[in-house]
Amino acid sequence: MARFFVDELPAEGAEYRLTGENAAHAKVLRLRPGEAVTLCDGRGTDCPCTVTEGLTLLAGPALPCPAEPKTAVSLWLAFPKADKAEHVIQKAVELGAVELVFFPSRYCVSRPEGKALENKLERWRRIARSAAEQSRRGVVPPVRAVGSYAQALREAAKAELSVLFYENEENYGIREALAEEHVGTSIACPRTSNARPYIQNWTVSLMTGAEGGFSEEEIEQARQAGLRICTLGPRILRCETAPLAGLTAVMYAMGEI
Amino acid sequence: MARFFVDELPAEGAEYRLTGENAAHAKVLRLRPGEAVTLCDGRGTDCPCTVTEGLTLLAGPALPCPAEPKTAVSLWLAFPKADKAEHVIQKAVELGAVELVFFPSRYCVSRPEGKALENKLERWRRIARSAAEQSRRGVVPPVRAVGSYAQALREAAKAELSVLFYENEENYGIREALAEEHVGTSIACPRTSNARPYIQNWTVSLMTGAEGGFSEEEIEQARQAGLRICTLGPRILRCETAPLAGLTAVMYAMGEI
Repeated sequence: MARFFVDELPAEGAEYRLTGENAAHAKVLRLRPGEAVTLCDGRGTDCPCTVTEGLTLLAGPALPCPAEPKTAVSLWLAFPKADKAEHVIQKAVELGAVELVFFPSRYCVSRPEGKALENKLERWRRIARSAAEQSRRGVVPPVRAVGSYAQALREAAKAELSVLFYENEENYGIREALAEEHVGTSIACPRTSNARPYIQNWTVSLMTGAEGGFSEEEIEQARQAGLRICTLGPRILRCETAPLAGLTAVMYAMGEI
Repeated sequence: MARFFVDELPAEGAEYRLTGENAAHAKVLRLRPGEAVTLCDGRGTDCPCTVTEGLTLLAGPALPCPAEPKTAVSLWLAFPKADKAEHVIQKAVELGAVELVFFPSRYCVSRPEGKALENKLERWRRIARSAAEQSRRGVVPPVRAVGSYAQALREAAKAELSVLFYENEENYGIREALAEEHVGTSIACPRTSNARPYIQNWTVSLMTGAEGGFSEEEIEQARQAGLRICTLGPRILRCETAPLAGLTAVMYAMGEI
């Protein structure tokens, strides 16, 4: 079913005409009268509609978007090389991230600034929007950049659980971090095997490095800022794989997958 | 640390000379005398070595590779379009899959056969080998294709847990499937919060569709073949994202991440 993000949802029973990019997209899809489509305000509310004619829709009742996760996971990513950022953004939006924030770190090869960064962010936001539409998300996760690693740490540490994935950490993982916070789901415990102990709007920050990883000094800074340094298992993951693996593991642990 | 797959490991204390592709790779890496490298037999055993001179190594004692998962997850993938297969193979090897098997299904756009398929498989195997080296795996996961969906179902169903991910399944997920098998890890259960109930060599098949998904008839066939039809959550994942998300969730549930 086609899905369009709009600034404001129509009232139930009102007509709505698709415009701009949405209209262009709708023409490609060749919507037919009677076809069901969904408008979404990008803030978690959906409005199921029916195509009446051309680009005109008849609005049904507004509903909370069922695809929005109850756990708010933001990804904090050291600028990667080339098109890896685009890949991570697309997949992270599908997998349920609520925000993506890029930052420079010591071993970053790519450090876009000024106009080059603005252009990248603009492109990245289009990718996030398109991935949100395709995966039926109720919000378009914001994509932004901060100017320094220190700032990234300060902001990431504000989440209820803040994690930095480090390949030289061997034992302490997401499981241990969640256990210390007394959250996550259980499946091996007979009496609670169907329990999915959500904590509504619990916030998690997951931070990952660039191709060259983090320096030991950077890891120490992160620890002092309050981040937990975690492993993602004994297999060394590429910089574009690690954030998605971490996100998926947290989403699974929180009952979102 | 550099890692090379070799046919046979040298005995402890013996000299070993890198040859062929490994020699070419070693030259690019500019190995220096005294540098530590690892040889791996591709069957789960590592041999830490020291560079003595040029391409010559001095072998240490053989050890089990620490990066091999205890749960054997094979991925069963309907042929995707273009370079998506390459992407999935690379990431799946990093994330710990033990085998990748491609098959044709009703909505596959790409259905390579004969020489074209052989060429693809050769290329895919090189990608698997390279990803295994980079992620420090102890085996190079085989990549192969079967001729029909029916054959894929028959073979995939031989695993102790066989799952097909279907976007129209809404409630039954990996968590439920694992709970029915009484496996997986617990974190919410206080007394077992540190337990990681591995089942050594437990086998899992995860099957995912192509861009167009599966037909209802194919889902019914899978059910009859003994596969469990599972959701990956309410967000619609692309065909290259779904197998990696499923693999990551199972690896997390089994204590491998």
